Order: sequence, then C-alpha cells, then structure tokens
Amino acid sequence: MSKENLISKLLKDYDSALNHSGVNGERLGQRLAMLSEIGATAEGGVNRPGFSAEEKQAKEQVKVWMKDAGLKVWEDGAGNVFGRLSGLADSMPAVASGSHVDSVPNGGNFDGPLGVLAALEVVEAWKETGHRPQRPFEVVIFSDEEGARFNGSLTGSMSLMGTLDIEKQLQLTDFNGDSFEEVLEKYGTSLDELKKASSHKKDIGLFIEVHIEQGKRLEKAGLPVGIVSGIAGPCWLEIIFSGKAGHAGNTPMDDRKDALVAAGEFVVAVETFPEKVSSTAVATVGKLSVHPNGVNVIPGEVSLFADIRDIYENTRDELVSLVIEKAKSIAEKRGIEVSIKVNTSVKPVPIDENIQTKLEKAFLENQIEPMRLPSGAGHDSMIVGEEIPVGMIFVRSKDGISHNPKEWSSLNDCVISVHVLKSFIESL
Amino acid sequence: MSKENLISKLLKDYDSALNHSGVNGERLGQRLAMLSEIGATAEGGVNRPGFSAEEKQAKEQVKVWMKDAGLKVWEDGAGNVFGRLSGLADSMPAVASGSHVDSVPNGGNFDGPLGVLAALEVVEAWKETGHRPQRPFEVVIFSDEEGARFNGSLTGSMSLMGTLDIEKQLQLTDFNGDSFEEVLEKYGTSLDELKKASSHKKDIGLFIEVHIEQGKRLEKAGLPVGIVSGIAGPCWLEIIFSGKAGHAGNTPMDDRKDALVAAGEFVVAVETFPEKVSSTAVATVGKLSVHPNGVNVIPGEVSLFADIRDIYENTRDELVSLVIEKAKSIAEKRGIEVSIKVNTSVKPVPIDENIQTKLEKAFLENQIEPMRLPSGAGHDSMIVGEEIPVGMIFVRSKDGISHNPKEWSSLNDCVISVHVLKSFIESL
Repeated sequence: MSKENLISKLLKDYDSALNHSGVNGERLGQRLAMLSEIGATAEGGVNRPGFSAEEKQAKEQVKVWMKDAGLKVWEDGAGNVFGRLSGLADSMPAVASGSHVDSVPNGGNFDGPLGVLAALEVVEAWKETGHRPQRPFEVVIFSDEEGARFNGSLTGSMSLMGTLDIEKQLQLTDFNGDSFEEVLEKYGTSLDELKKASSHKKDIGLFIEVHIEQGKRLEKAGLPVGIVSGIAGPCWLEIIFSGKAGHAGNTPMDDRKDALVAAGEFVVAVETFPEKVSSTAVATVGKLSVHPNGVNVIPGEVSLFADIRDIYENTRDELVSLVIEKAKSIAEKRGIEVSIKVNTSVKPVPIDENIQTKLEKAFLENQIEPMRLPSGAGHDSMIVGEEIPVGMIFVRSKDGISHNPKEWSSLNDCVISVHVLKSFIESL
Repeated sequence: MSKENLISKLLKDYDSALNHSGVNGERLGQRLAMLSEIGATAEGGVNRPGFSAEEKQAKEQVKVWMKDAGLKVWEDGAGNVFGRLSGLADSMPAVASGSHVDSVPNGGNFDGPLGVLAALEVVEAWKETGHRPQRPFEVVIFSDEEGARFNGSLTGSMSLMGTLDIEKQLQLTDFNGDSFEEVLEKYGTSLDELKKASSHKKDIGLFIEVHIEQGKRLEKAGLPVGIVSGIAGPCWLEIIFSGKAGHAGNTPMDDRKDALVAAGEFVVAVETFPEKVSSTAVATVGKLSVHPNGVNVIPGEVSLFADIRDIYENTRDELVSLVIEKAKSIAEKRGIEVSIKVNTSVKPVPIDENIQTKLEKAFLENQIEPMRLPSGAGHDSMIVGEEIPVGMIFVRSKDGISHNPKEWSSLNDCVISVHVLKSFIESL
C-alpha cells in the first residue's frame, strides 16, 4: 500500500496515551510507512531481496535516522548495519537489538523492519528523556535474513557469528544467475570483507529481537505482545516410499504395493505424534509428489518432506525418531521400500530462563500479561543465540498472516513492544 | 527389438505340438515379428499412434495377409479394416474377431496385434483344413484404440457403433496441433466418411476379442489363457480437499486445517472399500497434487483422482457411493471443504453367461482349465459390447507388464489362444 495509506491505517486507531517515556508512536508509524515505500509492490507489499538495491536503500534510510539519533554508525563486510550508543560503562559487552529490512518476494511491511525500528525507537526515547544506558546499546540490521536471493537465509547473522558455510555459499547463484561473490561485489563488498564480519561478535553480550509473531497464538489470547520461550529448530526428513506401479484396472487389491497408501498412512500418523512429546512440538508433511501420477496408474513412488520442530532439542529429536520409526514400520508392514534422509537439522535455541524472567518483569511494569509462546520459525536470534544469550518479543499478527502484503500489526501493539523492549533493556 | 530378435525369442521355447488343426505357430510368430518392425523404437517397442503412417502401414501389411487368406477386404471411413470370409449361411449376422494395431508411445508388441493375428490365424487354419464356417466370419482391425493421438481412445470401435461424440472430437488437436478433421484428411478419409462407418454394425452378430491380460492373474494361476468375465467400466472422481495453508512452524497442531492429512485418511480408506462390494472391484488414487507444496507450509489444498472399477454396474456404483461418503465425512470431521466431481463414467460391460459357458467348453476341448477373470482395462470389446454380445479371451502377460517394450506373452500361450478362439467360433 502507499505510504499515505499505511500511515493513515496505522494512525487511525492509535491510542496516543501510549506516547510516554519518550516513545512516540507517530514517529514509529511514519518510519514503518517510509520503509514500506522502498521496493513497494502493486499489492501493497514489498520486494527487498537480500543484497539488492532496495535492501541497501532501506538500510541507508535507517542509517540517516540512526545518525540523527546520535548513534555511531558502521556497516560490516556482510552488509550488517550497526548503530552504537555508548554506555556509562562503555567497556561492557553491548546489548544489541534489531532485525532485518530485506523481504520475501511481495512480502509484508512488518516482518523485519519493526524489529529494527523498535530498537531505534528505544534510542529516540532515551534521547528525549535524557536517559543514558549503563551498557553500550547497538541497533542492528542483519543482511539477507529471508534468503529470497539465494534460497539460503540468515546470511548476515551467520556472518556475524562466523557460522556461514562459505564453501556452500560459493556454489549458489541468485535469480539473475549471479554467484554469491558477484552479488557481494555489486553490493559493494567482497568475500574477504565478509569473512571479517565475525570480529565484532566478541563485543556483544546479549541480543534481543522484536518480531511479529507470524502466527495466531497472541491474537487468540487477546494479547499485544508475548515472550518467546524458545526458537524451534526444524528438522527436515526427506522420505521416499517405493512400491510398485501397476495398472489401476488390472491389478487386484490384494496384489498391490501402492506407495501412496503407505504415504497416506504416514501423513495421518505424523499429525498424532507431536502431542506425545511436548506441547510446543509440531510436525507437518507440506510437500509430497506422486510418481508416475497418472489417474489410472497405481503410485509406484511417493517422495515427501516431513518438517519437524520443537524448541527443545531432546523432544524434537524424540519426535524425529517417532516419525522415522513409523515410516519404517509402515513400509515393512506393506512390503515396500522406504528411504529416509535428514535433509536439514537446525538446533533449537532455548531462551535462557533468566532472560524470560526479566522480560516478564518488563511486561508487568507495562501492565501486560506475560504470555510465553514458542517461535516456530527461524530468526536472526536463532543464529545469534547459538553462542550469545538472546531474548525475543513477539508482536500480535492479524490472522497470523505473514510473508504477504496483508501482514498487519496495529501501531498500538508495535508501540507496546517498544515499551517492553525499553523496560527490559533498562533492567539489565 | 529387431524382427530377428523377436522371432528367435518367440520360437526358442515354442512347442511345435501346438501346430495342429491347421494352426501354425511359426506363421503367427513371424507375423507378430513383422508388425513389430513397423514404428519400431530403439528400446524394442513400437510407436504407432492412431491414424499415423505407422498404423496405416501395419493395416496395409495385414490387408495383404487377409487377401492371401482369401478374405474380402475393405476399410471403412473411420479407418477400421474388415476381412470377410463368407459363411455357409452367408445372410446370417457375422461373427467378428480382432483388435487394433495402433500403440501407445513406445508400446509393446502384443497389445492389439495379437488379437488381429489370432483371428486371422483361425482363417488360415480353416483354409489349411478346408473348413468352411456356418456363419460369415470377419477379421477386424479397429483404428486408434489407445488414443495416443488425441488423448481420447477407442475411436474406431466407437465409429462402428455410432457412439463417437463427434462434437467433442472436433475440439481435439493432436501432438502436431492438427485437428481431428485434418488428421482424418491426411489419413485419407473425412468426417463425412467416418459418420458412415456405423452402417456396418447391423451385419455383426457377435464379437470375440483375444487380448493380452496386462495383469498377473493368469501368471499367478499358471494358466496360458482365461475367460474374461466382464469389462470393468471406470468411474473417475475428481476430489479437492480445501483446508487452510499456514506456516508449519508457527501453527499449533490443534489449530490446523491440513488438507493433506484429510487426503491421507481418504487414500487409506479407499484401499479398504473394494472388498466390501465385490471380489472384482478395485479403487485407486493414482494422481494427487498438493498446494502450495512447500516443505514448511501446511497444505491448503489437495486435489486427487479416484479411479473406481468393477465389471458390474451396481457394485461399481455402490463403491463410488462409499468413496464419496468417506470423502464427505472426513471433510466434515476435520472442518474443511471438499468438492467432488464425476469426471468420467463408463458403463461396465458384463459378458453374457451363455458366451462364457461356450468359451468354457472351447477351453476344455483344448485341455485348458477355464479360469474366469475380470478385465480391469477398457478394450474395443467394451464399446462393441454396449450393443452386440461380446466375448474376450485373455492371454497370460509376463509379470503383468504392458504399454512397455518389455510386454511379453509366449508363443505357446498365443497359439493356445488361437485354438480356443477357433473352437469357440466353430461351436457357434
């Protein structure tokens, strides 16, 4: 949508009583609207792939605001932007907060930018009230979180943490056919500079990210914001059931090895397993292909992916085992073959109980019921959290919709997230 | 395979004791091998689409043999070839027998040609023994049975019976982009001539077709030939389950409307239904597509086809009802939508008990155990049988493989089919 439409929609039901302690909802709304103009699509969404001119333009805009707010601004070799406010005890490890400004194709206006602008709004509030934090504070924009460029993702945060698989990255080509190195050079950096990005890791003591929920738990609970209890690490199993194709008319029912019936039994079972291991676990068969896929041919082969997640590694792995055992037992019972391959396995990132407790206090200070909820999706916090303590604050998403121009969070909820973020950081 | 390879493979284990009563296995084998050269593929199969130069060449070859055997030969406006031997009572309705010489792409060497050449071999046997049948006998080649040209099928037999849907046919274009009319004209006939083909229907009193089984029932029973008890008419249901797509990580298990789990439950149930209605019924979900089909996206929609068959219309329809009810009840239970459309419904063709009994006698005369089995696939007999009494003799297929260069029936089994066909016709 146009900047004018977005800002008027954001302000329409904004409760200006939320403008206190230096936080200004109109400023936050204006900034969200200004970023929404960069790479705007006809449907009201945005196209800002990682390392694109649009992502760069959005970063440059934020850099101007960072400088105006008095931050010391720099960009590392991975395109990550930092805006630093020195602390009273400036030699302490910094508290960092932020997110990303890249988007999926025709993505929404809140996924990423809200986290960056919320962190910046904390600095603005401190500036207005003359507050000076104890520890240094850094507002961060991570590059290429969504992975729209290379079908990879989290490139910026991995570069900071030194965990980017450079060998693999060099094999990738983007939607224009350009290699990762070519893309970096066009962006204005290089592979050598990117490798230096991790030198800053040691300066950060804690990372806290505000992000839209992209789910419906907060909406169902009637709460504006929530405390992320852990970030689920997905395990992707690629499973192929191999039976025997045959003529659907000439093969009696008792002489079949139908790969799709096996897969059907599997899909139904997978739905029942998560509750056996944990209340936060989920398992999904989202992608499935039948071969030869003819109306009158008994399916000879079905390949599918099972996406299995939990915020705890032990229960996630228990769920993976249940799913694998089921695939094997169905194949054995039906006398068909099954191959199972772990395609992706990302470690779940638990959120330290101490950080969650501090977030609870920050919520209560702002008269917000401190609901805890898991993050099913990956975020920059997941990467940073492999080594550095992290926290996440989720903001209510209308209808749970994300990665879509219809993505929406009310300005009231966004501003509340700034207040709890500010209270949390001040409590450190 | 080359003609030389095919004939040597056919003759390798041929039992020449089967050469009696005028039937000659070497002749039948030679002719199968000669047809296999027309449209031969590198893999040893054949490409003879309906109305192609290759199908025409195969017909012309058979016409030469028909004339040599003393038959009166003509081709109707649909490209169907007839070779008539007058009977002692020549004004009686003819007994007709035959099949087709077109093929699927890279098809096998027996599907079609065997039925034509078996009927011709009966004439050759009569010629050798000086037998003259009571009723006139016609050897038939139907055009375009497989439908490889237009993704239709049974064009020739439907033209004879006057049941071809001309309006629909005129909408079709073939793999070259040519319309049905253009294809007819290139072949050397026309739509007007095709429409006249049905005038010959009244002259035929009974049709009997020899065809490879394309299944494994005879192989499992250890029998060379069998009596078809009925031709299953397929009913194709197009079913779409519509749930709600969502993020596989952020949507709790108890807040999902997963279309694929519904479809999985359906596929598993479909397998259990045929035995509830009849021992000859079958039901298959062969084609299934998931939308959006992303690894980390809960399936929002699944479309699938259920192929349901039986040789009896009442049990077939009972099975269709069971399947439809199940789709509806699953959707209701899961709170999702389902749409169900009958896409194709072909009437099953029962084989008259009197014809099956006569075939049994012909089998016993030749010391063959008369096993009855259903035909799950459609054949020209299915179309002819809508109005004229039909019989079918199935010949054992190695491993049940068909529509494939590996298609194989031993020459012994092929010759046995000629003997039972001959005994049957002589008994009429």
